[in-house]
Amino acid sequence: MAATPTPDQLRDAAQALTPWMIDTLSAFVAAPSPSGAEQPAADFLEGLMQDMGLDCERIVLDSRQIEGLALFSCPCDPDGGRHNLLARHLPPAGTKGRSVLFNGHLDVVPTGPESLWTAGPYVPRVEDGWLYGRGAGDMKGGIVCALAALQLLRTLGFAPAGTVGFNAVLDEENTGNGTLATLHALQTARAKAKLTDFDAVIIPEPFGETLMSAQVGVSWLFVTLTGRPAHVAYMGQGLNPIEAAMAIMADLKELEAEWNLPENRHPAFSDVAHPVNFNLGRIEGGEWNSSVPCTCTLGLRIGYYPGMDPADVEAQVGARIRAKARALNPALVVEIDARGHRSPGCVYDLEAPAMRTLATAHAKITGQPPARLACTATTDGRHFRLATDLPVTNYGPTARNIHGIDEAVSLESMQRVTAAMAQFIVDWCGVVAA
Amino acid sequence: MAATPTPDQLRDAAQALTPWMIDTLSAFVAAPSPSGAEQPAADFLEGLMQDMGLDCERIVLDSRQIEGLALFSCPCDPDGGRHNLLARHLPPAGTKGRSVLFNGHLDVVPTGPESLWTAGPYVPRVEDGWLYGRGAGDMKGGIVCALAALQLLRTLGFAPAGTVGFNAVLDEENTGNGTLATLHALQTARAKAKLTDFDAVIIPEPFGETLMSAQVGVSWLFVTLTGRPAHVAYMGQGLNPIEAAMAIMADLKELEAEWNLPENRHPAFSDVAHPVNFNLGRIEGGEWNSSVPCTCTLGLRIGYYPGMDPADVEAQVGARIRAKARALNPALVVEIDARGHRSPGCVYDLEAPAMRTLATAHAKITGQPPARLACTATTDGRHFRLATDLPVTNYGPTARNIHGIDEAVSLESMQRVTAAMAQFIVDWCGVVAA
Repeated sequence: MAATPTPDQLRDAAQALTPWMIDTLSAFVAAPSPSGAEQPAADFLEGLMQDMGLDCERIVLDSRQIEGLALFSCPCDPDGGRHNLLARHLPPAGTKGRSVLFNGHLDVVPTGPESLWTAGPYVPRVEDGWLYGRGAGDMKGGIVCALAALQLLRTLGFAPAGTVGFNAVLDEENTGNGTLATLHALQTARAKAKLTDFDAVIIPEPFGETLMSAQVGVSWLFVTLTGRPAHVAYMGQGLNPIEAAMAIMADLKELEAEWNLPENRHPAFSDVAHPVNFNLGRIEGGEWNSSVPCTCTLGLRIGYYPGMDPADVEAQVGARIRAKARALNPALVVEIDARGHRSPGCVYDLEAPAMRTLATAHAKITGQPPARLACTATTDGRHFRLATDLPVTNYGPTARNIHGIDEAVSLESMQRVTAAMAQFIVDWCGVVAA
Repeated sequence: MAATPTPDQLRDAAQALTPWMIDTLSAFVAAPSPSGAEQPAADFLEGLMQDMGLDCERIVLDSRQIEGLALFSCPCDPDGGRHNLLARHLPPAGTKGRSVLFNGHLDVVPTGPESLWTAGPYVPRVEDGWLYGRGAGDMKGGIVCALAALQLLRTLGFAPAGTVGFNAVLDEENTGNGTLATLHALQTARAKAKLTDFDAVIIPEPFGETLMSAQVGVSWLFVTLTGRPAHVAYMGQGLNPIEAAMAIMADLKELEAEWNLPENRHPAFSDVAHPVNFNLGRIEGGEWNSSVPCTCTLGLRIGYYPGMDPADVEAQVGARIRAKARALNPALVVEIDARGHRSPGCVYDLEAPAMRTLATAHAKITGQPPARLACTATTDGRHFRLATDLPVTNYGPTARNIHGIDEAVSLESMQRVTAAMAQFIVDWCGVVAA
């Protein structure tokens, strides 16, 4: 056997491993894990990690331990004893290669109306080279790629010469506190593993095999408007907070447009058509068709550029909301609750040696260098980028309709990403005969 | 004892009866009765009616019996064995005066946030001459006035010479099917009482001691918009149904403005500043701040003029909504559900002898003729006006904040209305020594 596998061998082995990836990802998708209730997926993954012989530990989410950290976001759900999983392939005795941590999230976003799904959000199915299901793309598929990369090397008779870690976290979609908890545990001897065990971090988020060059900041705001209810017969006497919400949202869209102007863009996003998105993701108001409603609550997601302080952004947007409300009607009461993401943006260093190695690994497998993506979403990469010196980026398979209906991940892309991750392990960590 | 009581005696007796009215209304308010769950208030009232020695029967709501009737509205709640109460004072043997039916609703609208109430919506309290609580005005206060009018005559030693009926119904606030059920039972020998037992109908809705000259039609529409959900990172690919809802509502407001133009008003509403109200009473959409939402549901209340056919109005408004949705984005799916009020407007005949007698009774008690009200809300009066030949109108006490926070009814107004109702019984039905 050769000292290291060739890219051709890795590609072929990834293809051969596809049934394993499909089976694994299908079972993973079938274990529902909405943010706040990730346990079924955690249980499945823990079993898989143990079956793979990894050194596996649970990192319990304890908000009190991390609430003082700069990157902590106000929780949307109780901790409830939920835990991350941190598993490690430990290098064979006597070998000492460089290490890598694959960091992925267990939680998935709500499904939307299940009736709109072709086969139900938690009913995995494969069709035309895509595996469908909530979380198939975002991001159980990426986690499976990372585990498959190790599995693939093993099938070829190799073992990584350095530590290969797999951190599977909860609460990424609403706060990012899961990764924060593991990072804190790694830094404070609360975990068996240590942060210094790792020389690089890869987040296999499903951004089409790109390397992420930057990501926006994201803050969630819950805005509750309280008007004056009345019988609709006297509608003029009431103060309809739903209608006020509409006017406030229209005003915020003007701020969004302003931030998106080319002259206002962060340089990392100069080529992105619409980097900043203010999303009205939820609304709820009123109780009775024939009453002028009393309250209306908006769930907003505010995007912004790297370098902008989340608290400053929230204050600025909050002031804008309050000013508009005052202009509409001074009697309107505005409450703003910053529950959920308070996640600053960041710019990744793709020139770091580990990241160049990853780009090269991708090129070896696919024949071309990876594209770079300035991402209009947030990812857990920010924790490593902003709070450690570890080289980090996102690199994962192609998916479609993430957060939408009939979310799916490309199986061919999973093969390529798996092979490229294995190539990265070969090139960065080194391998030895198993 | 004189053959009939004088207005002065009635006024004084109504004042003396105020503690009874306060106690009765307080207990009535403390028995919550949101539409669909009126039983506590029905139980309280049944006990009171029995204590007053009235001939009391339950009229069970059976939608299958009435769903073919023109004035039936699609239910918002299951029938669930709920029932109206129909109680009658029967004239002493040998007397045969004219009769009257007081028709009031048991159900109340939702409370809004209870924390905004000074003392909780179902915690009755009296302050500065007002009795507070959900339903105190709309319309438990009016029902108490009608019962107090009978009680008052009794305390003066008189009994009505004709039948005095009290119909207490459910489901007025969302469909009007309660009154429809009693009316149908009266017309089809399903009740002990018969429609021909009654020569006039008074609905003691809380419209400030006015006689109602006309009321608008009201239809409820539930509009569900389904867009295309997406990750907010690709917000441009999504199709936000909440934002679409806002545009559709703005468009409907233009139609509302058009219908309110002086040249478009029904003559009965020519002097009303804003007779037609389109109310956005409820909204609910989306699940996740960081997802472009999939669906948004609006709860609308559409007002319109007497003579306009509810089905035509709903079709016209529905077509407008669909056209706007199509213009916004042909991919937007629109579903319109006409659950709840499908309640045509009507014009009352205040020149009918019974109604003139009522106006005169009010004048005898208060010293001035009652004002007339073209009402921008619907009431159960439409059932009697449109489906029977009975003279009917609304006449009840002054209330404030109905459907709002800290709803209240004026105790002085209740005294006046009680005395005027007693005067009406004296003048219309006649009285005999009890």
